[in-house]
Amino acid sequence: MSAIRHALTTKREDDFAQWYQEVISEAEMAEESGVRGCMVIKPWGYGIWERMQRLMDDRIKEAGVSNCYFPLFIPLSYFAKEAEHVDGFAKEMAVVTHHRLVSDGKGGLTPDPEAKLEEPLIVRPTSETVIGSAMSRWVQSWRDLPLMTNQWANVVRWEMRTRMFLRTSEFLWQEGHTAHADRQEAMEETLRALEMYRDFAETELAMPVIAGEKPENERFPGAVATYSIEAMMQDGKALQAGTSHYLGTGFAKAAGITYQDREGTQQLCHTTSWGTSTRMIGGLIMTHGDDDGLRVPPMVAPHQIVILPMLRDKPEDAELLAYCEELRRSLSARYALGEKLRVLLDKRPGKATQKRWGWVKKGVPLILEIGGRDAANGQITVVRRDRLWNTEGKVNFQAMSQEAFLGIAAGELEDLQGALYAEALAKRDANITKIDSMEELNAFFSETKRYPGWAEVVWSRPTGDELEDVVKQLKSLKLTMRNTPLRSDPVEGTCLFTGQPAVERIYVARAY
Amino acid sequence: MSAIRHALTTKREDDFAQWYQEVISEAEMAEESGVRGCMVIKPWGYGIWERMQRLMDDRIKEAGVSNCYFPLFIPLSYFAKEAEHVDGFAKEMAVVTHHRLVSDGKGGLTPDPEAKLEEPLIVRPTSETVIGSAMSRWVQSWRDLPLMTNQWANVVRWEMRTRMFLRTSEFLWQEGHTAHADRQEAMEETLRALEMYRDFAETELAMPVIAGEKPENERFPGAVATYSIEAMMQDGKALQAGTSHYLGTGFAKAAGITYQDREGTQQLCHTTSWGTSTRMIGGLIMTHGDDDGLRVPPMVAPHQIVILPMLRDKPEDAELLAYCEELRRSLSARYALGEKLRVLLDKRPGKATQKRWGWVKKGVPLILEIGGRDAANGQITVVRRDRLWNTEGKVNFQAMSQEAFLGIAAGELEDLQGALYAEALAKRDANITKIDSMEELNAFFSETKRYPGWAEVVWSRPTGDELEDVVKQLKSLKLTMRNTPLRSDPVEGTCLFTGQPAVERIYVARAY
Repeated sequence: MSAIRHALTTKREDDFAQWYQEVISEAEMAEESGVRGCMVIKPWGYGIWERMQRLMDDRIKEAGVSNCYFPLFIPLSYFAKEAEHVDGFAKEMAVVTHHRLVSDGKGGLTPDPEAKLEEPLIVRPTSETVIGSAMSRWVQSWRDLPLMTNQWANVVRWEMRTRMFLRTSEFLWQEGHTAHADRQEAMEETLRALEMYRDFAETELAMPVIAGEKPENERFPGAVATYSIEAMMQDGKALQAGTSHYLGTGFAKAAGITYQDREGTQQLCHTTSWGTSTRMIGGLIMTHGDDDGLRVPPMVAPHQIVILPMLRDKPEDAELLAYCEELRRSLSARYALGEKLRVLLDKRPGKATQKRWGWVKKGVPLILEIGGRDAANGQITVVRRDRLWNTEGKVNFQAMSQEAFLGIAAGELEDLQGALYAEALAKRDANITKIDSMEELNAFFSETKRYPGWAEVVWSRPTGDELEDVVKQLKSLKLTMRNTPLRSDPVEGTCLFTGQPAVERIYVARAY
Repeated sequence: MSAIRHALTTKREDDFAQWYQEVISEAEMAEESGVRGCMVIKPWGYGIWERMQRLMDDRIKEAGVSNCYFPLFIPLSYFAKEAEHVDGFAKEMAVVTHHRLVSDGKGGLTPDPEAKLEEPLIVRPTSETVIGSAMSRWVQSWRDLPLMTNQWANVVRWEMRTRMFLRTSEFLWQEGHTAHADRQEAMEETLRALEMYRDFAETELAMPVIAGEKPENERFPGAVATYSIEAMMQDGKALQAGTSHYLGTGFAKAAGITYQDREGTQQLCHTTSWGTSTRMIGGLIMTHGDDDGLRVPPMVAPHQIVILPMLRDKPEDAELLAYCEELRRSLSARYALGEKLRVLLDKRPGKATQKRWGWVKKGVPLILEIGGRDAANGQITVVRRDRLWNTEGKVNFQAMSQEAFLGIAAGELEDLQGALYAEALAKRDANITKIDSMEELNAFFSETKRYPGWAEVVWSRPTGDELEDVVKQLKSLKLTMRNTPLRSDPVEGTCLFTGQPAVERIYVARAY
């Protein structure tokens, strides 16, 4: 096998962080905006987000949840009502204090002291408090329950160290907020949302995840229980790709969300919230990317097939373009994965080879190159993004008749969707190691092995000071507890942290 | 004809402003949020916005424009680069000055003086400056042009007097931003966007509009030319429902958007921007609403058909529900106006009559009520929202077989879409009056007639002080110039403001 000249400069195994930045830049997904901690999401990155949005939104609506829109600004007093919540967020919020600018006398502008707000406004880091205020108006009787809302919005959490898609001061997300009559219904909704996220991640994103409960120390500020889906990136680190919280009655009490039950008694609602964000795009990159760039699962690919005519700036081009346009039309009328195929005919000027590498780096599932001779013979050549190289280290183009390709296109996309999932699953499972003692844990994560993966341990689910102690021990190894899987066999043995009988399984890993 | 008991308390002719608020409240479209100047958009209002978004987004993509996402925050220095622009907006912007809260020593929180930003951030009122900064990186050569981007986002303009959907401190919109090689291409794009808006308003919203150029005094801050679509509300006032700006090279100069032309010379780009917002929902209400609430054009109705089973809380309900569900399924498989029908089976508990009035006020195009006997006989009853009352002042339900209804449903929706447009167009045209002199103008708008409509005048297109004088005269009558229609016969006569020969037509009206 000859040496392959990969499309990226940095290989995953050499410098994963650098590779990640290179994919984002080379696939033209996003870039620094010049505004501290905020990124510009470029068409290819945003196109993937739009696909995620549409598919997630379908699932949210299917569950009977209604989309609404709530204010960007939250008065400080709303925010301060839930003590744990405000403590958890106060350290990283953008505060609006003025509503007008005025000349600073030096040719510039400055906030107008005459236009200082009586009460500062917080740019929402999350919307429990402002949505809680609306819910307190909307819920009167048991007949109004469950109340299930969702919003697609931008939120701001002031971050000191940012990384594109994974941790930015402003990000885009959906946040579901629901109110229920009792604990059981609220817990069911919390877990329904979690299961929706799990299935979305695995089906649409082809990204295997573990759905489970976060340990107490990792709970959302003010929550009674927090659940997450955790995915393993190719460097073995964990990425929390979605969370769902059972909030108990704390937020309902703070906001006054009460209802009259069937017996006429006033009761507090039990609320939930759940969210996924543009962070999933980071997860997608680090799950499926390779040394040639991104590989986008067909279900979320803005274009699933790109047709590249090999234009020569000659009159014959017209015939070639007509052939390609006809092919585009035929393909676009077909279905794969439950939707019409999304096909782009790339007519931009420039060499087809150069354009090909652009699409390879963007991770388009199927790339077609068609020359004048192909057009004359009713032929095409195609390469599948997950089989980019042949055994001779050349780009693995397959030639076939147009008709043959029309017959297999949908099947190839469906197969590719499944292949990406299978590959990621195999990688993840190969990198989860059962560990029984602190010595072993220490050794495992101190090894020279660059990407150790996750440790699976059993523990006694300590709380309070005992838990604090565990967290501290792990922190010294730069480790965190990820979650306790919902789907798990019964556990045996002893907690490696406390020496007490173990009650459940938990994953320990380095994380984003 | 008997007296009709309309569903709303306030009639349009008695108090249009009050009627508008009542529609929004009774149709459960939006409400005050408790946060100054910000509203909560409720599911029905947001559902209409989602429909508008999807249809507008299709048009935007069809034009070859790519969606992106740019930062919410704009550093003050970016904003200050374009002098006219910052002057136009500085009076009404939310300013972020701190990034953390700290205890105020009295049990509350206050912005942390240690976390004061070196440079204040503006919450975007519009994104020309921050997008211009990105464009300056993206455009290098003539090959990169045209560069056409759009974003769907929230923006904030601090408003002292707010009115839901029409003028709120935060609102949702799309903003297109494009860069071109020369004036001609940029003007073509400006007018393409304007025409897209006109066609969208008339086709999707069934709202007739005049597309034209705003007078100089109404230009967007920093623009060379501003165009708008103007719709007439049922109180005769004008609503600017979308704008498109040719920005010349001013923003390009401020942000450094330059390109190397084919000859190798550096040139400034010519830029455009264009936007439509949640304000269109206000326009929809005031164009199509009647004394029974909203009437939503089928193309933007979240549900086009609502099926109300007349449940009796008895075992027979199961059979009735099965019949209705089967009908819902059959209808949902059919197409109208180019899309699958959107049909809701409303199974909520409660009396069908009461639920009916809820849907009437929301303006659902077709409402079906189906009782047990109907189900047994394969019948339905249906009322069309624009033909709600019969000549006896009763709700105009028509009975027919299920099969007959399946045959006509799509046609009825298409007819209703057209009927709403025709009705609005006739109303508007009947309320445009040609006026030749200031005396006439004065009299026209001083009349006791409650809703005078628009005056159509010819003018000499004065500039500078002369224009200022016209603006002042009109202001004393609470009037503004709306726009100069693009589609217009040649004009004759004398400008009623200046006495000079007229060069074009312009509409004068009270406005939102």
